[in-house]
Amino acid sequence: MPSFDSTEHPHRRFNALSGEWVLVSPHRSKRPWQGQQEETEQDQRPAYDPTCYLCPGNARVGGEVNPKYESTYVFNNDFGALTADVPTGGVNEGGLLRAEAESGICRVICFSPRHDLTLPQMTVPAIRKVVDLWVEEFQTLGARPDINYVQIFENKGPMMGCSNPHPHGQIWAQRTVPGEPAQEGVQQLAYFQEHGRTLLSDYLKIELEKQERVVLENEHFVVLVPYWAVWPYETLIVSRRAVQDITQLTPEERDALADAVRRLTIRYDNLFNISFPYSAGLHQRPTDGQEHPEWHLHMHFYPPLLRSATVRKFMVGYEMLGDPQRDVTPEFSAGRLRELSEVHYKEAGN
Amino acid sequence: MPSFDSTEHPHRRFNALSGEWVLVSPHRSKRPWQGQQEETEQDQRPAYDPTCYLCPGNARVGGEVNPKYESTYVFNNDFGALTADVPTGGVNEGGLLRAEAESGICRVICFSPRHDLTLPQMTVPAIRKVVDLWVEEFQTLGARPDINYVQIFENKGPMMGCSNPHPHGQIWAQRTVPGEPAQEGVQQLAYFQEHGRTLLSDYLKIELEKQERVVLENEHFVVLVPYWAVWPYETLIVSRRAVQDITQLTPEERDALADAVRRLTIRYDNLFNISFPYSAGLHQRPTDGQEHPEWHLHMHFYPPLLRSATVRKFMVGYEMLGDPQRDVTPEFSAGRLRELSEVHYKEAGN
Ligand SMILES: O=P(O)(O)O[C@H]1O[C@H](CO)[C@@H](O)[C@H](O)[C@H]1O
Ligand SMILES: O=P(O)(O)O[C@H]1O[C@H](CO)[C@@H](O)[C@H](O)[C@H]1O
Repeated sequence: MPSFDSTEHPHRRFNALSGEWVLVSPHRSKRPWQGQQEETEQDQRPAYDPTCYLCPGNARVGGEVNPKYESTYVFNNDFGALTADVPTGGVNEGGLLRAEAESGICRVICFSPRHDLTLPQMTVPAIRKVVDLWVEEFQTLGARPDINYVQIFENKGPMMGCSNPHPHGQIWAQRTVPGEPAQEGVQQLAYFQEHGRTLLSDYLKIELEKQERVVLENEHFVVLVPYWAVWPYETLIVSRRAVQDITQLTPEERDALADAVRRLTIRYDNLFNISFPYSAGLHQRPTDGQEHPEWHLHMHFYPPLLRSATVRKFMVGYEMLGDPQRDVTPEFSAGRLRELSEVHYKEAGN
Repeated sequence: MPSFDSTEHPHRRFNALSGEWVLVSPHRSKRPWQGQQEETEQDQRPAYDPTCYLCPGNARVGGEVNPKYESTYVFNNDFGALTADVPTGGVNEGGLLRAEAESGICRVICFSPRHDLTLPQMTVPAIRKVVDLWVEEFQTLGARPDINYVQIFENKGPMMGCSNPHPHGQIWAQRTVPGEPAQEGVQQLAYFQEHGRTLLSDYLKIELEKQERVVLENEHFVVLVPYWAVWPYETLIVSRRAVQDITQLTPEERDALADAVRRLTIRYDNLFNISFPYSAGLHQRPTDGQEHPEWHLHMHFYPPLLRSATVRKFMVGYEMLGDPQRDVTPEFSAGRLRELSEVHYKEAGN
């Protein structure tokens, strides 16, 4: 028998950050696809849409009118999943029926007044303004005694449940730490206690030596396809310096984060020459008043597409009942992303 | 301030079976939806399709020809994510890059020779044949020393990544126990060690007393929307008797499982008068040679639709980065399912 070869043989990879496993089936990319084809998004939008509830000067569903904002704009979600004024309380019947009241705040962040843009089509200084707003929001929300965790994220594209194409993201801030960052916290704390360095510092060191999964770098951030990536073109933006949250970034580092986001999302759009759908978000220390030296700021990108603009990966069946599963190796995906141009296809005239 | 009311206030519920939490936002169902609309499936299929690779007598992609089977038919997946002949081996660099070879077997089960049927359109005796095949496969695969876990499941509908409408399910059997059943095992073992009864026996007792989340019952099985349901119309089929796996079911219990599957899936189809998409699957004890008295056989149904045949719940953004989130309470969903007829809408002539 030949020896184990991770470019050929099915295997499981361990997510050091979350403690979970993913099943990798490198040979499976040859499988023919006869299933659902996604619609390719109509991507001809006006700079201003009078019916959009996020455009400057327009009225929202709740009746409020947006100011004529010129860069970014943030407001409380008119239909937030979390609300601040929840009475405390809960249910516990033998540990089997267990509920706890949860309070929080949901915010919407418009990235630009321009209805027709997306992050990859914005300049670094314009994205820097988005980063600045993330910093401010994290600071203000995180300072509240009733907020112990702040989740900043973006759903991009109808395929990712985004109901409005106006470039925007969201923030859900709440009393408890949700499962994903809680698990990452456990893994990071165990590593930090054993090694005295953050898990992602040491991981980054290995990845920079190997250069197999690195997509792009700048002075302060590295973008890579993590060894344990679940989604076909999943990536991770990691800060070179072990900071616990975005408020600790220097002005230069904020610019560098904007640069990394821009260059990565341009590559994404160039992969299939479409506005590339994804969910993305920052993971940072809980805002529970502790220092959390084990935490290392990073940003996840989870894009659903697999083979083309119309064929996505479905996380169903086995994935819901067993483990996540992927058909191409992270190394293959990193190679594809690495070879793409950082000039947006629309600017390049393709 | 009024006191906490789980039909009104945002709260988190604990999944006693998996150990995870779900965020419930009852007030959020009023949110308007301007996002992606799903296509409603073309549901006019012939009883036999000459181009279908699962119909009796047809050739498959790999070239093999299906027999002219008359009830069920099972074969090895031509593009399985797992293969049996994998050399052992792995990778471990400082616990940060970690991989392990994984071997297994992927099977495809045709539920019926009729291309135009689905489970809710089949008779109880016909579904019983599917149950019998599940039993046989679990027994045969589970007896192999290289197989320690057998995952039986079905992806139904293009929305759930199903690439062929011919009624069929799958089995992925493998060397290691995947994350979901592993976690359920941990929770069930802890409960069993403390109480000497299975977690689901005690849970079932509470649900049968309350009758708030029960959808339907027969002599041997109960179908309910679990207290911790994540998907809008998620359900759980639980055996009244604490059996560890499907091979332990008596003939009467096998019939009763077929009956429960049929009645539940008819209600699902009747909810929006369409062939209702879902991923469903059995969770059973690992086949590692241990007895696992803590395990209690059950079947999960995870359907994506939320408000209508064309509006689904998206598990994106916050859900991927934080916790799963739902907009209607499990009690509301159970009430909706409970009031539906058990005569399929196509037979009722709607
Ligand atoms: O095996 P199929 O039906 O071709 O594929 C489907 O089910 C598999 C198992 O849940 C998933 O991994 C695939 O993403 C999905 O498209
Ligand atoms: O808030 P939106 O954009 O209306 O809704 C979208 O993002 C939310 C947060 O990830 C999800 O809960 C919804 O399922 C999704 O459709």
